[in-house]
Amino acid sequence: MTGTFVGVTRTIDGSSIARRIRAEVAERVAEAAAVRRVPGLATLLVGDDPASAVYVAAKRRAVREAGMRDVHRHLPEHSTEYEVASVIDELAGRSDVSGILLQLPLPPQLDAAALIDRIPVTKDVDGLTTASLGRLARGERGLRPCTPSGVIELLDAEGIELKGACVAVVGWGELVGRPLTHLLLRRGATVSVAHEFTADLAAVTRPADIVVVATGVRGLVGPEHVRPGATVIDVGIHRTPHGLAGDVRAAELDGIAGRITPVPGGVGPMTIAMLLVNTLRAAEWGAEAAPVPVC
Amino acid sequence: MTGTFVGVTRTIDGSSIARRIRAEVAERVAEAAAVRRVPGLATLLVGDDPASAVYVAAKRRAVREAGMRDVHRHLPEHSTEYEVASVIDELAGRSDVSGILLQLPLPPQLDAAALIDRIPVTKDVDGLTTASLGRLARGERGLRPCTPSGVIELLDAEGIELKGACVAVVGWGELVGRPLTHLLLRRGATVSVAHEFTADLAAVTRPADIVVVATGVRGLVGPEHVRPGATVIDVGIHRTPHGLAGDVRAAELDGIAGRITPVPGGVGPMTIAMLLVNTLRAAEWGAEAAPVPVC
Repeated sequence: MTGTFVGVTRTIDGSSIARRIRAEVAERVAEAAAVRRVPGLATLLVGDDPASAVYVAAKRRAVREAGMRDVHRHLPEHSTEYEVASVIDELAGRSDVSGILLQLPLPPQLDAAALIDRIPVTKDVDGLTTASLGRLARGERGLRPCTPSGVIELLDAEGIELKGACVAVVGWGELVGRPLTHLLLRRGATVSVAHEFTADLAAVTRPADIVVVATGVRGLVGPEHVRPGATVIDVGIHRTPHGLAGDVRAAELDGIAGRITPVPGGVGPMTIAMLLVNTLRAAEWGAEAAPVPVC
Repeated sequence: MTGTFVGVTRTIDGSSIARRIRAEVAERVAEAAAVRRVPGLATLLVGDDPASAVYVAAKRRAVREAGMRDVHRHLPEHSTEYEVASVIDELAGRSDVSGILLQLPLPPQLDAAALIDRIPVTKDVDGLTTASLGRLARGERGLRPCTPSGVIELLDAEGIELKGACVAVVGWGELVGRPLTHLLLRRGATVSVAHEFTADLAAVTRPADIVVVATGVRGLVGPEHVRPGATVIDVGIHRTPHGLAGDVRAAELDGIAGRITPVPGGVGPMTIAMLLVNTLRAAEWGAEAAPVPVC
């Protein structure tokens, strides 16, 4: 971070960046459709969790808006592992399904890790299978988890240099913190990871040029943790009586943070945009492996 | 790190800790042999690199000393990928081979990543397959790479608390830095990772309670990087006209570091000890999967 910070905080408009990415995806989908290769995303929802139903509906809407094929399966709450696995296998075998998204969390009788690993690596648009995470660790081609990719895209869109930047990642979760740490290090950032056992959080976050917070603890990070002028990315999302809130006390950082993502309208829209990007990549990857279609 | 540092640097005796671990492994091998389940390690060497030949010979000697079965294959320098893959497949199918070690580096005509991935996850004693790294990322059962496990074992043997400790990992390599970062975070350490693009190395290492250096740059780390009383683990190994040297200027840290690993006699012996531990674990893992033997 160069220059002196003059005290005006810029809000990073994730909604607008996500919209641009989705428009780009839609263009490439139209090109693919012209040669009869429409990418398709299959969403698989087990049970009746209302929040999951809302998320799946939003993803399906985005899929259709991008011009992709929307395939959906809804299984009852008390489905057996065999039943869910059979549906995954069926979707894995379909050439018109480029990506498979198994909505989490799953009902407790199901072994989530085993079912996730049943998704073929070329269709793993959530990037959460053992094979995808191993490919990430080895730096091999693969689909990366959507939320951390979305954070990287946001920083890129803002023109923030990652190589040599000091980044604090707060939260070591499987969905965000861990894969994000890998992605940032691959881009040449110096990364410090803090979590629930970190004694002095501010000691980790205050030296950082960029602070990414993904803890699930509402309002954890405030002005005491952030150096004037630093960029703050808030991955948290909490429903409150006054609307959505994040892991960061954003109002208190006004005039302190150089840039900050709002909640909502920051990282959230990027997750769905990256799901579409991953579905497109999966379709291209699958097409390479598959025989050339006869028109 | 509690208390005030009084200026006497303790040398961490990796050779002695490794000897103890190897003796424990030998005891368990003797128990396994009593029920006709002798663990076996297969080493596979391709070509005539003299350093590789020395390393493989040392590993085989350790295997025999632990009472394990020593299986060895030596293929010519100009072997094809098919030839190497066939030997891996043969070893993978043998019930008397618990673990397979493919000595690196491989001759340039061979695709190392593809050949490594041919080793079944239950026999991957180096912990470097995509499947093993994915299991590490997900926190699932699996074999962990030997050198980073050896670093953790050294710290444990010294009674150094990892939970809540601040650790700086210098070097983001595939063999040490990356898996070590995961292992440390799983143990509850706050971890900062520095590498060749880190602008201010001392800013990352000086706040740390423990500094682990695995860069391949001789003498990179010195007193300017280390807080008085901190523990310094040197993973580097360089042949010099005056004997072996590490990534750390150890002599300059005398009276500054609280504890330090020597080179040689620090991390090096731990790598072989952990290879034996992994072979034992692989044998136990394989035995669970295999049918119960009839005596």
